[in-house]
Amino acid sequence: MKWSTELPVRFGEIDQAGVVYYPRFFHYFHQAFEEWFRQALGVSYPDLVLKEGIGFPSVRVETEFLKPLRYGDGARVQIEILDVGRTSLTLRYELYRMPENIVSARATIKTVAIDNNTFKSVPIPDAWRERFEHFRDAASA
Amino acid sequence: MKWSTELPVRFGEIDQAGVVYYPRFFHYFHQAFEEWFRQALGVSYPDLVLKEGIGFPSVRVETEFLKPLRYGDGARVQIEILDVGRTSLTLRYELYRMPENIVSARATIKTVAIDNNTFKSVPIPDAWRERFEHFRDAASA
Amino acid sequence: MKWSTELPVRFGEIDQAGVVYYPRFFHYFHQAFEEWFRQALGVSYPDLVLKEGIGFPSVRVETEFLKPLRYGDGARVQIEILDVGRTSLTLRYELYRMPENIVSARATIKTVAIDNNTFKSVPIPDAWRERFEHFRDAASA
Amino acid sequence: MKWSTELPVRFGEIDQAGVVYYPRFFHYFHQAFEEWFRQALGVSYPDLVLKEGIGFPSVRVETEFLKPLRYGDGARVQIEILDVGRTSLTLRYELYRMPENIVSARATIKTVAIDNNTFKSVPIPDAWRERFEHFRDAASA
Repeated sequence: MKWSTELPVRFGEIDQAGVVYYPRFFHYFHQAFEEWFRQALGVSYPDLVLKEGIGFPSVRVETEFLKPLRYGDGARVQIEILDVGRTSLTLRYELYRMPENIVSARATIKTVAIDNNTFKSVPIPDAWRERFEHFRDAASA
Repeated sequence: MKWSTELPVRFGEIDQAGVVYYPRFFHYFHQAFEEWFRQALGVSYPDLVLKEGIGFPSVRVETEFLKPLRYGDGARVQIEILDVGRTSLTLRYELYRMPENIVSARATIKTVAIDNNTFKSVPIPDAWRERFEHFRDAASA
Repeated sequence: MKWSTELPVRFGEIDQAGVVYYPRFFHYFHQAFEEWFRQALGVSYPDLVLKEGIGFPSVRVETEFLKPLRYGDGARVQIEILDVGRTSLTLRYELYRMPENIVSARATIKTVAIDNNTFKSVPIPDAWRERFEHFRDAASA
Repeated sequence: MKWSTELPVRFGEIDQAGVVYYPRFFHYFHQAFEEWFRQALGVSYPDLVLKEGIGFPSVRVETEFLKPLRYGDGARVQIEILDVGRTSLTLRYELYRMPENIVSARATIKTVAIDNNTFKSVPIPDAWRERFEHFRDAASA
């Protein structure tokens, strides 16, 4: 069981080379991250940010781009948890070009929990740690 | 005397049709607006927003698109003041495709001064009104 | 019967004022336009562009912004046909802030059918005219 | 001697957390890359793409984010050449937050020369290899 969501490639996301401009892959990853909170963890990322005052900015990103995305393709983004640290959450993203379902890009993104007011890292709150661990354990079961 | 600034068309701003995606024209207009504060009014829009707590969101936008912009073109954006009301500032934008210097797009954009905390409209502060009127009068002289 | 689609407001679409940056409303309109082709007209806009070589760039845009959108809101975009001309298609967009379902923005956008190779306007092909008219007549029935 | 260019942080590049949305750092890197061709190599990237039919898409990206960028900051992007391979060009980016001039982000980005028509990798043309090597040697002198 791995979670994924599919995003359409939009007309305005194509660059001069006729493929999705690579910075937009990170926007796809972030959109998938937001959907993952809602669909897979059962909570809203806006609520986390706006009501709990916590965020998960990216501190380290490693990405490989294998196949370009073109207009009309779909971008299916699959998310796995690689690690839940005291303050950090590291996710693995695989972006599949649809409908062929071939890997277009892979990323490992380390985020750190912060207090939105101070922008300092904070321990991941227990309720969130449980949600992340529950997802990870269900995914590997 | 009319004020303008030139922005380069970037690789990632092109769409599937091979021209600048039209929503990005509004980003060009806003970037020119930010530069206009700094270069023409002598004050920083970030300072206005962050220190004075005032903003100028757009409430009405009318735009004509005449000629497409392509990669390698420049976008020279010229700004004129059409009207300074009690709470509103209405600007006229002409975007010239460079180096030909032909009109690519024209816009009339009405903004309203707001208190950033309440997002309610407020009278334009006198110091700002003077700057706007000084620019308008110098431009028409 | 009016057609609409709902888009989530994303974390990265918010600006310094804490609301959706207004140029992104036009990206919402264009995304809704792409969905409208697929969902309401039963054909894919990518196919129209890539296989038939036709596009519908915007030539005139009038917009009113009434209520800001914030992170966590939804943007429901409703599309109506105002006019089908020989070469032009004029659409009316209403963007509703969800879940309150109040009007956030309204736009009238005139597009012109072009040959993507020449970027010159062309008569709307009959098969497309029929689809547009069928939608318009069904919508007003 | 290291080359750099400074880009202003724009109003619309800020996200819900009040800092530059991290995917936009890659747009900053790409804008700096385009400027680097023009200013440091003396040739236009648009000409390379449009007239020579060659591009340099990114195939591997490693990035560390150290300090957030806020509205009003400048983003000074410094580019160094790490490696010029047969078909690949690997660049090192350091993004400095201005005016403090402290490192905000670092990236290593491997690109591959491609034929834009086939999107297949090609050997870097000799004239380009010389320009890259000249820049690298001048930078390390």
